[in-house]
Amino acid sequence: MFIHASADYVPTRVVDNEYFSSLTGRPTDWFEKLTGIRQRRRAAQGENANTMAIAAVENLVRTSPQILDGVDLIIGASYTPWDTIGTIAHVVQKHFSIRDARALYVSTACSSFIDALEMTWAYFQAGRASRALVIAVEHNSLYSRDSDEKSGHLWGDGAAALLVSKEPGGQGVQIIDVRAVGRGDLGRGPEGIQMVPHQDGLVMLHGKDIFMHACREMVAAAHSILDRHGVSLDDVRLMIPHQANQRIINCVIEHLKMPAERAALTIQELGNTGCASVAITYHRHWQRLNAGDIGLIVAFGGGYSAGAALLRRLPG
Amino acid sequence: MFIHASADYVPTRVVDNEYFSSLTGRPTDWFEKLTGIRQRRRAAQGENANTMAIAAVENLVRTSPQILDGVDLIIGASYTPWDTIGTIAHVVQKHFSIRDARALYVSTACSSFIDALEMTWAYFQAGRASRALVIAVEHNSLYSRDSDEKSGHLWGDGAAALLVSKEPGGQGVQIIDVRAVGRGDLGRGPEGIQMVPHQDGLVMLHGKDIFMHACREMVAAAHSILDRHGVSLDDVRLMIPHQANQRIINCVIEHLKMPAERAALTIQELGNTGCASVAITYHRHWQRLNAGDIGLIVAFGGGYSAGAALLRRLPG
Repeated sequence: MFIHASADYVPTRVVDNEYFSSLTGRPTDWFEKLTGIRQRRRAAQGENANTMAIAAVENLVRTSPQILDGVDLIIGASYTPWDTIGTIAHVVQKHFSIRDARALYVSTACSSFIDALEMTWAYFQAGRASRALVIAVEHNSLYSRDSDEKSGHLWGDGAAALLVSKEPGGQGVQIIDVRAVGRGDLGRGPEGIQMVPHQDGLVMLHGKDIFMHACREMVAAAHSILDRHGVSLDDVRLMIPHQANQRIINCVIEHLKMPAERAALTIQELGNTGCASVAITYHRHWQRLNAGDIGLIVAFGGGYSAGAALLRRLPG
Repeated sequence: MFIHASADYVPTRVVDNEYFSSLTGRPTDWFEKLTGIRQRRRAAQGENANTMAIAAVENLVRTSPQILDGVDLIIGASYTPWDTIGTIAHVVQKHFSIRDARALYVSTACSSFIDALEMTWAYFQAGRASRALVIAVEHNSLYSRDSDEKSGHLWGDGAAALLVSKEPGGQGVQIIDVRAVGRGDLGRGPEGIQMVPHQDGLVMLHGKDIFMHACREMVAAAHSILDRHGVSLDDVRLMIPHQANQRIINCVIEHLKMPAERAALTIQELGNTGCASVAITYHRHWQRLNAGDIGLIVAFGGGYSAGAALLRRLPG
C-alpha cells in the first residue's frame, strides 16, 4: 500500500525547559541532557485529541484538496482520547462528510500508529477498504502533571494524518510491509506506564524497564521486518524511531550500528508526542527519501507493544 | 471464521429500579416501562474494564482449558477503558501469558464488538492472525451518574470473551460475514452521546436522535448483510440486537417484521452493557440455535456506527 499525502498539526504554545526548571528546581540543562528535549507544544484551552485530529486533516486537505475522495476507512489512534464514543474517527467522518467509511478508534499506546497501519493493511487485504485516512494524535498535557519530576517534562501534544491507498499515487511512498505485536507479557508489561483517565492520568512507574524494553523491542522489530524482506540495514536511508527519549533513540541506533544522521528527529522541539510521534516525524522527514530509497519506522508502546513499517520511495 | 467458545462475566452487585426511584422521585415502574430494564449489575470497588475482561477470559478458560493455545490476536473493545496504555488486550496478554499475539484496544462505542469481529476477519483474511481472543467489556458505572434522570438508570457493567478461529471447531458457530460502518456523518453524529473521561463522563445529550438512528441503522445493517448473502429474514432463527433499550429493540423487530420471540434479550436483568451487550447476549442465547440455524447480531454505536454479523450453527 502507498502513502499519498501526509500532514501534521501541532499547537502554537511552546513550553521550554526553564518552565520545568522553575517547577522542579532542577537545572535548566538537566532536562535536555536526560531526554534530548528542548521544548514541547501544548494544546490550548478548547483543543483536544478530536480538534487536533481535525486540524491535521484540514492541513492534509489544504495541500491536497481532493485527497479525501473515496476514503472508506478512518482510523484514529491515541492513548489520550477526548471522547471514546464520539471518537477521533467519528468526528473526522462528520467534519469532512466522509460517508460509508469504517470508523475506528484504536490504542496500543505509543505504537498505535503502527497498529493502525497494520489494521489498514488487513482491511485492504480483506477487500474491506482501499483508501484509508489514518490519524495519530496525542493530548498528553491533558493527563500529565507538569510537577511530576519523573515524566512531566517529557510530554508534547500534536497530531498527524496520512492518506494511505491500495493504489500508488501522491507522494509515492510505498509501505512494503508493516507489522506490530503485543508484548504485554514482558517485563513490567502493562504496568510500566499507566494512563488511567479516571485516576492519576499519565504516570510512568517503571522508567528503566520501559527504557530497556523499548530499545530491545525496537531493535528486534527492525531486524525482523528487514530480514523478512531481505533488506540490509545499510540500505535503510531514513530511520524514523518513536520519539520518547533521545537516549532510547541513541540506544536503538547503536544496536543497529546505523549512522546517527540517518535517524529522523522531532523530539528536540516536540518532546514525546506519543503515538503521533512517528507519524509527525515521518511527515517532517519523508522528503529525505530519494527515489528508490528505503525507510523504516519503528515504535514501542508502553503496554507493551512494538512494531515496524518498511517504506520505499517510488521512482519518479 | 468460527466461534469456538464464549463466556461472560458480570459483577455480583445488583442495582434495581427502587434505587433509581429513590434518587429521582420517579415511580419505580417508570424505568421498566421506558426501557425494559429491571436491574443492572454494578462493578465493585477495585473492579474495572481490565479486571472484568480478565474475569471473562478466566471463565472461558474454566470451561475450555486449552482454548488460548495458539492465540495470535487479542482485541479488547470498550468505550469505558480503565487504562488506555495498559489496555484490556495487554493485561489479558500478561495475565494469560499469551506470547507473540497482536494486542489491540478499540472503540466504536456500542458497536465495538462488531468492529472487533470485523477487524478479526480482516487480520484472518490478510494472513496476519488465525486465532483471536475477542473481549468486549464495559464499566459504565465508572462514568455514569446515578442521579442523571435521562440516562443514569440505563447502564450496566459486564464483559464477554469469545474465541474466534479461522478453522471450525468448539461450539461450532460460523460467522458467515461481519460488517460495520461508521455513521458519524448522520444526525447528531458524534454528539448524541458523549463519553469524555476528563469531564462529564457518560452523558446522553440527544436521546431521540440516537433512538431514531439506532432503529433505522440496525434495520439497515440487518437487511444489508442478509441481502448480500441471499438469506431471508424468515430464516433468521435468533436475532441478537444491541441491548440499549427495549423500545429500540421492539422498533427494530417491528421494522423487520420478525416474531418478537426470536430476539435474544439480556436487557431486563443487565441493562445497557454497552459494547459488551451483544457479546454477553450471544453467550447466553447461542444454544437456541439448532444445527444449520441462522443467527444475526446487530448493533448501533453512539458515535454513530452500525454493524451486523451473520451466524450459522454448524451441523453436528
